[in-house]
Amino acid sequence: MYTVKLQQTFWKIRSNKAFEFFVVFVIIFSALVIGAKTYDMSPALLSAMYLLDWGITFFFLAEITIRFLGEERKRDFFKNGWNIFDTLIVTVSLIPADATEMAIIGRLIRIFRVLRMVSIIPELRMLLNSLIQALPQLGYVLLLMFIIFYIYAAIGANFFGDINPVLWGDITISMLTLFRVMTFEDWTDVMYETMSVYGWSWAYYLTFIFFTAFAFLNMVIGIVVNVMNEEHERVLKAEQREEELTLEHLRHEIREIKDLLKNR
Amino acid sequence: MYTVKLQQTFWKIRSNKAFEFFVVFVIIFSALVIGAKTYDMSPALLSAMYLLDWGITFFFLAEITIRFLGEERKRDFFKNGWNIFDTLIVTVSLIPADATEMAIIGRLIRIFRVLRMVSIIPELRMLLNSLIQALPQLGYVLLLMFIIFYIYAAIGANFFGDINPVLWGDITISMLTLFRVMTFEDWTDVMYETMSVYGWSWAYYLTFIFFTAFAFLNMVIGIVVNVMNEEHERVLKAEQREEELTLEHLRHEIREIKDLLKNR
Amino acid sequence: MYTVKLQQTFWKIRSNKAFEFFVVFVIIFSALVIGAKTYDMSPALLSAMYLLDWGITFFFLAEITIRFLGEERKRDFFKNGWNIFDTLIVTVSLIPADATEMAIIGRLIRIFRVLRMVSIIPELRMLLNSLIQALPQLGYVLLLMFIIFYIYAAIGANFFGDINPVLWGDITISMLTLFRVMTFEDWTDVMYETMSVYGWSWAYYLTFIFFTAFAFLNMVIGIVVNVMNEEHERVLKAEQREEELTLEHLRHEIREIKDLLKNR
Amino acid sequence: MYTVKLQQTFWKIRSNKAFEFFVVFVIIFSALVIGAKTYDMSPALLSAMYLLDWGITFFFLAEITIRFLGEERKRDFFKNGWNIFDTLIVTVSLIPADATEMAIIGRLIRIFRVLRMVSIIPELRMLLNSLIQALPQLGYVLLLMFIIFYIYAAIGANFFGDINPVLWGDITISMLTLFRVMTFEDWTDVMYETMSVYGWSWAYYLTFIFFTAFAFLNMVIGIVVNVMNEEHERVLKAEQREEELTLEHLRHEIREIKDLLKNR
Repeated sequence: MYTVKLQQTFWKIRSNKAFEFFVVFVIIFSALVIGAKTYDMSPALLSAMYLLDWGITFFFLAEITIRFLGEERKRDFFKNGWNIFDTLIVTVSLIPADATEMAIIGRLIRIFRVLRMVSIIPELRMLLNSLIQALPQLGYVLLLMFIIFYIYAAIGANFFGDINPVLWGDITISMLTLFRVMTFEDWTDVMYETMSVYGWSWAYYLTFIFFTAFAFLNMVIGIVVNVMNEEHERVLKAEQREEELTLEHLRHEIREIKDLLKNR
Repeated sequence: MYTVKLQQTFWKIRSNKAFEFFVVFVIIFSALVIGAKTYDMSPALLSAMYLLDWGITFFFLAEITIRFLGEERKRDFFKNGWNIFDTLIVTVSLIPADATEMAIIGRLIRIFRVLRMVSIIPELRMLLNSLIQALPQLGYVLLLMFIIFYIYAAIGANFFGDINPVLWGDITISMLTLFRVMTFEDWTDVMYETMSVYGWSWAYYLTFIFFTAFAFLNMVIGIVVNVMNEEHERVLKAEQREEELTLEHLRHEIREIKDLLKNR
Repeated sequence: MYTVKLQQTFWKIRSNKAFEFFVVFVIIFSALVIGAKTYDMSPALLSAMYLLDWGITFFFLAEITIRFLGEERKRDFFKNGWNIFDTLIVTVSLIPADATEMAIIGRLIRIFRVLRMVSIIPELRMLLNSLIQALPQLGYVLLLMFIIFYIYAAIGANFFGDINPVLWGDITISMLTLFRVMTFEDWTDVMYETMSVYGWSWAYYLTFIFFTAFAFLNMVIGIVVNVMNEEHERVLKAEQREEELTLEHLRHEIREIKDLLKNR
Repeated sequence: MYTVKLQQTFWKIRSNKAFEFFVVFVIIFSALVIGAKTYDMSPALLSAMYLLDWGITFFFLAEITIRFLGEERKRDFFKNGWNIFDTLIVTVSLIPADATEMAIIGRLIRIFRVLRMVSIIPELRMLLNSLIQALPQLGYVLLLMFIIFYIYAAIGANFFGDINPVLWGDITISMLTLFRVMTFEDWTDVMYETMSVYGWSWAYYLTFIFFTAFAFLNMVIGIVVNVMNEEHERVLKAEQREEELTLEHLRHEIREIKDLLKNR
């Protein structure tokens, strides 16, 4: 009985607009603190920052606790991926990070707190969801692109490996170099180097650029067509609904004529 | 009585096609003067330019005054954002700019006069308006992109800050460096430098490029879909109007049949 | 009487498929000759090329003459822009180019002969026409882009002119530098140089990139929407025609019912 | 009689899901072997790899044989382009590659085996087919682009050939340099070099960039419009089918009215 009352109190706090705005404010503030710590600071400021950091951590802990306690059925809380994400971020940042290696992870976790901005603003959450939903549709194009990269990287590592091991040493380095070529970043320097040994290697780069550009174009068009199909479907349904409505009227009138003819 | 007559006279001047063309001509001329001043010139030419500049300033002052006096209700003049923009540009360029610091601002103001081209040609005004209207729709995508930039910049400043303070010194410099990476401008140089210390940092750059490219793509598609939706709506309405017209005919005929049946 | 017969003979030659293919072949051959001349050649080959060149010139002269004489009404020949273009190219390449300066122009004219490929293949002619037709629609966007370039170039020349005259010497050089920035070509080098004097200049580059990218995006979307509008119009008309057809049937049947009711 | 039974047995093996998955597994494994060989390895591992390679080759040979023998009509096997491709890859990799030159070709062939991934996964096969189908539609745009490249390369080789023979030596090298300019790769370095001799050459680069960008844009729009046309056609047909259905209902009802009127 008592716990239900408590749950309802926490639910009220959680649903409170002011509480929500305050959480967003603290998230923004924590982001600013993270940014501020990248500047050179006096020791006094640094220790102040240290305290602030812990304050934010404990506020987030309290907030998550309120959210969890405010949930009617505790299981539902962990069915929401964003809740799991929030809980993970907050609990991990509780671990005292004194050792140097742990300190780096601790700093990283604190930075990822900014991602809570996405989890708290519904519009951003929707945007990210739609980005994630678009990924599987592109799966096969990405696979094809990976195959193109793999084949060209294998050729590159086999033939150009001795010319410049820094760029073509093994297949993973070659794939990184090919990504660089795809972004057109000083790709001619890479090409001229290999052309001095293999004169035909311009064909290697040109076909690679052509294939990846073409696959990329296909990917973009794939997304656009997908988005438009959904649009079309929506428009088509709207049209049909309307048409059905007007046709319904017509049918009704024809039925009336029939009735007039029969019942006379 | 007298003021009304004067207002009408100014209104006539203002609506005169010849007057409008002359204003456009003076704006283009003032743009050419600004361009000419960037070349080396003899002192005689420089003083001629100086006089020209003041002549243009006073012409613009006269023009704005005519526009203002030609307005029937003086309040309406300042309801138009472009009028406020024009008045601001003209009044600020009246300030005598002799001190060196003021001179720079004076020069800037004179350059911004070229923007009056946009305020006077209706087609450009419409184009700029549509650009500004498209911005809020992209608001959340831009916010998401800023969050991506902020998180990666925080990671960059924390980890690479000691490797190259010029590129990763603090969070703002890191964001500038990340913008550079996004434009693919010598991004491999930035990457190879940090890879010599942190071997895994290629993943940092590749995921960043992937996320920003994806968000950018989403933005472009967002605009395209938006533009198409408006198009579809327009087409849909045209279709409906037509359909309703033809259906109206049909209904009319059916009503006639009913009348024939009833009134017999 | 005799001239008409001659005209018809020339018209027949001109309309001959074999003749057309031969002309295309000579144009391709002349393009290959132009390409071959860029390689180092023995004096014997060079003089052979020289003869070939004159042979091609005279063949083109003969071809144009046939086309002209084959035309029924001589005026119509010059109404076609491509005919004027062809005649110009051929007549100019007749001028003996011995002087060094004239030789350069002569070489240029011979290169432009390759453009005859476009004038002779109808599909390419259509493609080019559609490219030219798309230009005026983009007129105002290009004007807006020019104004953005002009204003930024004026600011650049005024402020950065003393830092690096090679890049910011006057307004035309500044516009070229800004075009370079727009293509992201080593733009950070340009930026870091001016940032060493004016710390705020990163804002200058970032806003410029933002504005031009936005205007460019608008241009692309403008073209796409335009193309789609035409598509939609076409589809709409097809739909209407069909709808009218089916409605015509319905109306016909209703008229029959009315006749049945009346004539009974 | 006996051969038919054998054929059916092979057909069953071929259609077996487990067999298919095993083939995909071996292809992936062979790709990994190819990737692994680009790393430095101990002689023991190298000889193990050598054996593995032959094992894979013989497995592929057996697989192709099963596919061939499983085919009902042997001719149909070679009607499928992908079968020819698979057979070619496998038979060529059977050739003992001991001579150094042959070894390179042998390595290449082994790399191309990865392409069997495309031939075995239907979705990738469809993707590649659609890429190939899109090519002829772009044929004329590619031809126009080639003409633009050729003309500019001819001008470049004629005028800039003496300034930097490495970039503008002959027409093919010039075309490669122009491709580099098109990708904006250090294009200003190329430009500034020629501008030191020919001051006007900035116009050469700017018009080239403009033309190729425009042609490229046209190509992209061409593909998008094409994809949309197909979409529209599909939607239109779906609409028509539906409309016809509803109109059929109406006609039916009208016929009933007529029958009622007539048969009374």
